[in-house]
Amino acid sequence: MNTFTYDALPGRVVFGPGVARGGLLDEIDTFGATRILLIAADSELDLARELCAPFAGRIAATFSGVRPHVPLEVAERARVAAAEADLVLCVGGGSTTGTAKAVALTTGLPIVAVPTTYAGSEVTPVWGLTEGSRKSTGTDPRVLPRTVVYDPELTLTLPADLSVASGLNAMAHCVEAFWAPRRNPVSNAVAEDGIRHLAAGLPAVAANAGDLDARTELLLGAYLAGSAFAVAGSGLHHKICHVLGGAFDLPHARTHAIVLPYVLAFNAPRAPDAAFRIASALGFADPVQGLRRLGEKLGVPPGLRELGLREDYADVVLEDILALAPADNPRPVTADSLRWLLSAAWAGTDPAKEIS
Amino acid sequence: MNTFTYDALPGRVVFGPGVARGGLLDEIDTFGATRILLIAADSELDLARELCAPFAGRIAATFSGVRPHVPLEVAERARVAAAEADLVLCVGGGSTTGTAKAVALTTGLPIVAVPTTYAGSEVTPVWGLTEGSRKSTGTDPRVLPRTVVYDPELTLTLPADLSVASGLNAMAHCVEAFWAPRRNPVSNAVAEDGIRHLAAGLPAVAANAGDLDARTELLLGAYLAGSAFAVAGSGLHHKICHVLGGAFDLPHARTHAIVLPYVLAFNAPRAPDAAFRIASALGFADPVQGLRRLGEKLGVPPGLRELGLREDYADVVLEDILALAPADNPRPVTADSLRWLLSAAWAGTDPAKEIS
Repeated sequence: MNTFTYDALPGRVVFGPGVARGGLLDEIDTFGATRILLIAADSELDLARELCAPFAGRIAATFSGVRPHVPLEVAERARVAAAEADLVLCVGGGSTTGTAKAVALTTGLPIVAVPTTYAGSEVTPVWGLTEGSRKSTGTDPRVLPRTVVYDPELTLTLPADLSVASGLNAMAHCVEAFWAPRRNPVSNAVAEDGIRHLAAGLPAVAANAGDLDARTELLLGAYLAGSAFAVAGSGLHHKICHVLGGAFDLPHARTHAIVLPYVLAFNAPRAPDAAFRIASALGFADPVQGLRRLGEKLGVPPGLRELGLREDYADVVLEDILALAPADNPRPVTADSLRWLLSAAWAGTDPAKEIS
Repeated sequence: MNTFTYDALPGRVVFGPGVARGGLLDEIDTFGATRILLIAADSELDLARELCAPFAGRIAATFSGVRPHVPLEVAERARVAAAEADLVLCVGGGSTTGTAKAVALTTGLPIVAVPTTYAGSEVTPVWGLTEGSRKSTGTDPRVLPRTVVYDPELTLTLPADLSVASGLNAMAHCVEAFWAPRRNPVSNAVAEDGIRHLAAGLPAVAANAGDLDARTELLLGAYLAGSAFAVAGSGLHHKICHVLGGAFDLPHARTHAIVLPYVLAFNAPRAPDAAFRIASALGFADPVQGLRRLGEKLGVPPGLRELGLREDYADVVLEDILALAPADNPRPVTADSLRWLLSAAWAGTDPAKEIS
């Protein structure tokens, strides 16, 4: 990587067990905010109000009508609620952060985000809105939260299965960062470290969802994954999963978890530095085996056939994936090589043996 | 590191052999700049003018009265030259970048920086000015260059000895980043990678100053070092060298290079994660030996006595260093422990044996 561009994103991160209960007021104070719009889903409203207790008098409005994928009508109601606000404070997962972003997109209000899952979107300038079944996304510096308060204590109640699904999603962002379009030495370093923390945190949280150290590792990994994705973008793996998700009714997180080792096996021989760094971060000599062993520990099925997909599914999606495959993927994506990848990912056979 | 804050700095970096000659116009265009103040030292004015040839008509003024440490009267003359400007373009080393920062500090003009050395200051928001013999420094987001164009081709003519001195300075920033006051997982990852590139680039440039690959490694390492320092700050090592520099007339770069392994040996047992990562980046099992071997290859004298310092120098500086020593240094800095460090650094003995 001797030629690159890197557009570094600004933003303040405050990370640590207890920082949401202990430090949120200080962060709000740096903005001088006195008329805050609080956004939290119904299920997290009690938590959000507890966190805001030290400055309850400054909550000018509360919006809890959060829905997945930020339907436009939800965004519009949230924007109305923001009419008098000078800051948006969101407490929750990706949909909650997404609703805050929808508000910032049209109002320019600063966002302070307090994530309670491993979504990572709180450190990206990417927004998304859905109108009917149509999803539109975009990038705008105004939607990037100005401050993110990461408190692992808030994630203790997230169920282990959701935590693993969300953490594996973060893993896919880290791995793909090595060949994503805007990759650079900084996103590489952040992604490598993200893999290290996710690989430590995922099995530990799966084993004991109430382990604060494990939650801290996993949240740190999720933050680094979001940061790597925000800068580098995503690549072939995400294109494949996007097409599969559109064509078949597959569980999102498990699809990602199954496909990722096959994309890594596909690219690794042409991306030796990435392979070495991913392997090192996973603590395995071979990065593909490292990802597979991690998946096994977490109950990820070996192949897409375990999700009920038919063996001839590749015929349905091959052209669509080829059309979206990044031109600068480390290994050129041809119909033949892609078919190999998709067949191996279906059968769940050892990627190293199946993909040559 | 389960609790941290991280204030990420914005900024665009364009890096690669040939990017200054091939891509500077595009970068200038993104600002819509039409009245540029060009700052370059006399010795680099020809190079700067060559780089600006594609947009020569937009150079409204040129300032070449650059002096080390940015004397206030130099800053004031540069600010006068900036009266009609809409952008400051600086081509050169740390003093040139520093002059551009002095202009931005009072005018708020955006800076596009094209470094020709390994100073790293082009990615920090730190400014410095001298009035008589008094140096004042500060931090202001306005002086952080908006875009930095790193072209290793521009460094090919920097003499090997200056390159090594500048590169070792960058190494000290990377190593110290692990225990500097604002350290965090991102600055750690960047610093580790910086060490890796500096350790590869330094001996290669020393062996062949005209080796473009080696220059690319060294410039990449210098960029990462500047980024790590910009975020994390500096620690005990820089305090020691600052006091030594003020008390004795020592060569700056060699003083740093000699002292660094001793500070590392001093801290490593109390900062095992840092020690592991520094060692890994240097490609040695023991990080102190790694730094010492690198220094030997580069002709760094083993001890401060080779610089002509008297053995009792510690008596002169001990109190001053103690007063400045960071309270959260991994190993508490006491009069006794500091005296050991200073004695070992003077004698040049194996740090692992001398510091316990």
